[in-house]
Amino acid sequence: MQRYFLEEAYQPSEKFELSAEAFHHIVHVMRMKPKDRVYLAFSDQQVIIAEITEITEEKVYLTEIEKEEMEKELPSMITIASGYPKGDKLEWIVQKGTELGAHAFIGFPAKTSVVKWDAKKRKKRQERLTKIAQEAAEQSHRQIAPRVELLDTEKELFTQLSDYDVILVAYEESAKQGELANLAKVFNSVTAGSRILAIFGPEGGLMAEEINQFVDAGAIICGLGPRILRTETAPLYLLSAASYHWELNK
Amino acid sequence: MQRYFLEEAYQPSEKFELSAEAFHHIVHVMRMKPKDRVYLAFSDQQVIIAEITEITEEKVYLTEIEKEEMEKELPSMITIASGYPKGDKLEWIVQKGTELGAHAFIGFPAKTSVVKWDAKKRKKRQERLTKIAQEAAEQSHRQIAPRVELLDTEKELFTQLSDYDVILVAYEESAKQGELANLAKVFNSVTAGSRILAIFGPEGGLMAEEINQFVDAGAIICGLGPRILRTETAPLYLLSAASYHWELNK
Repeated sequence: MQRYFLEEAYQPSEKFELSAEAFHHIVHVMRMKPKDRVYLAFSDQQVIIAEITEITEEKVYLTEIEKEEMEKELPSMITIASGYPKGDKLEWIVQKGTELGAHAFIGFPAKTSVVKWDAKKRKKRQERLTKIAQEAAEQSHRQIAPRVELLDTEKELFTQLSDYDVILVAYEESAKQGELANLAKVFNSVTAGSRILAIFGPEGGLMAEEINQFVDAGAIICGLGPRILRTETAPLYLLSAASYHWELNK
Repeated sequence: MQRYFLEEAYQPSEKFELSAEAFHHIVHVMRMKPKDRVYLAFSDQQVIIAEITEITEEKVYLTEIEKEEMEKELPSMITIASGYPKGDKLEWIVQKGTELGAHAFIGFPAKTSVVKWDAKKRKKRQERLTKIAQEAAEQSHRQIAPRVELLDTEKELFTQLSDYDVILVAYEESAKQGELANLAKVFNSVTAGSRILAIFGPEGGLMAEEINQFVDAGAIICGLGPRILRTETAPLYLLSAASYHWELNK
């Protein structure tokens, strides 16, 4: 069943309406008719199953059938910050990371990042990634569609660090330094609703200087097992581990 | 440092030699010289750091410097069996799954698989996937390169089931049936060296009939969290969860 994300919070109502893009998708892409049903996901993470009652020139009207009871979001909100990688790896991180429950994504130019985008290209790319996140959120039955933000400078990332309760930096050398226990420690200690930022380097990794700056700002270095993971694989490991820890191994 | 997989078991020796493909890679691709160092990974999972002592017309000779001490393999061997998916998804599963520690990969034609390969095409594809596994094993510092086997019929998979200690079937509907605890139960109960087979459907999923056949053969149905994962994401979740459970959250 198709899932549509609404920008407003849920308010009990006799009648819900969809217009613009969702209208177009229901009427012209899915060719739905009255009596067909969809999920409506509101901005406060409430989700209802709704039935189409009427389709007009510009609007689809629906009535609530029942609430979707199951919790689909990770209990803590994990934002993935990726140093700009090459090629289409960011697309992959956003698509797979959304399936695996990421709350939001941030791209930033790390010191070893090769790609350079001007403001115009960055805006276009951000729109494309936002669309990928939305589609993956629909497909994986999320209650929210993750936000994607592409930063112009690494400094902007530092100014945002205070928005989070916990900051993790994945560091591939840390396996050698016995920091393999930190991830589990963090997963065990955070409370529901915590905001976690997990920072990952691009292909060339994060430089010692960057790691030190993040640690000075309060970040915890964590290893992700004894094998070396690629830049696009490491965030998927962290999100899977979080889901397993909080949702399956309770 | 480059990593080469050898087909023989480790035997202490004054002198090791590489020829054929490894020779070509060292001499013509990496353009290494005497005194350069590489990892040699033997078939019994022992890994040494070796230094080149001499390069002749057809052989590279090396001497052992030290053993690689760290354990890089998951304590239990997880084989990923994927119902043939579309496009290049199997390449992705093999590359990322190797990074994440899979012991081996099996492809099989599930009832909803769309792709059809004749014996010749299957052989070619298997060779390509084996190469991808080998490269990913080198890059992620594995002690073994996973084996890849592409089956002609689903029946062949059933005849192999007795080779494993535990058989898991990932089933997306199981989240609704309260089977979310099974994965952790299995990870908690298996002993080191166990052979685990984890079976995943293609895009269209496994049919109820297939699931029942696997369960009749002893398989345990397990959910992978409340979100719906794509066919190429689910194996990565399972491997990440295994690594987290056994290697990080001890």
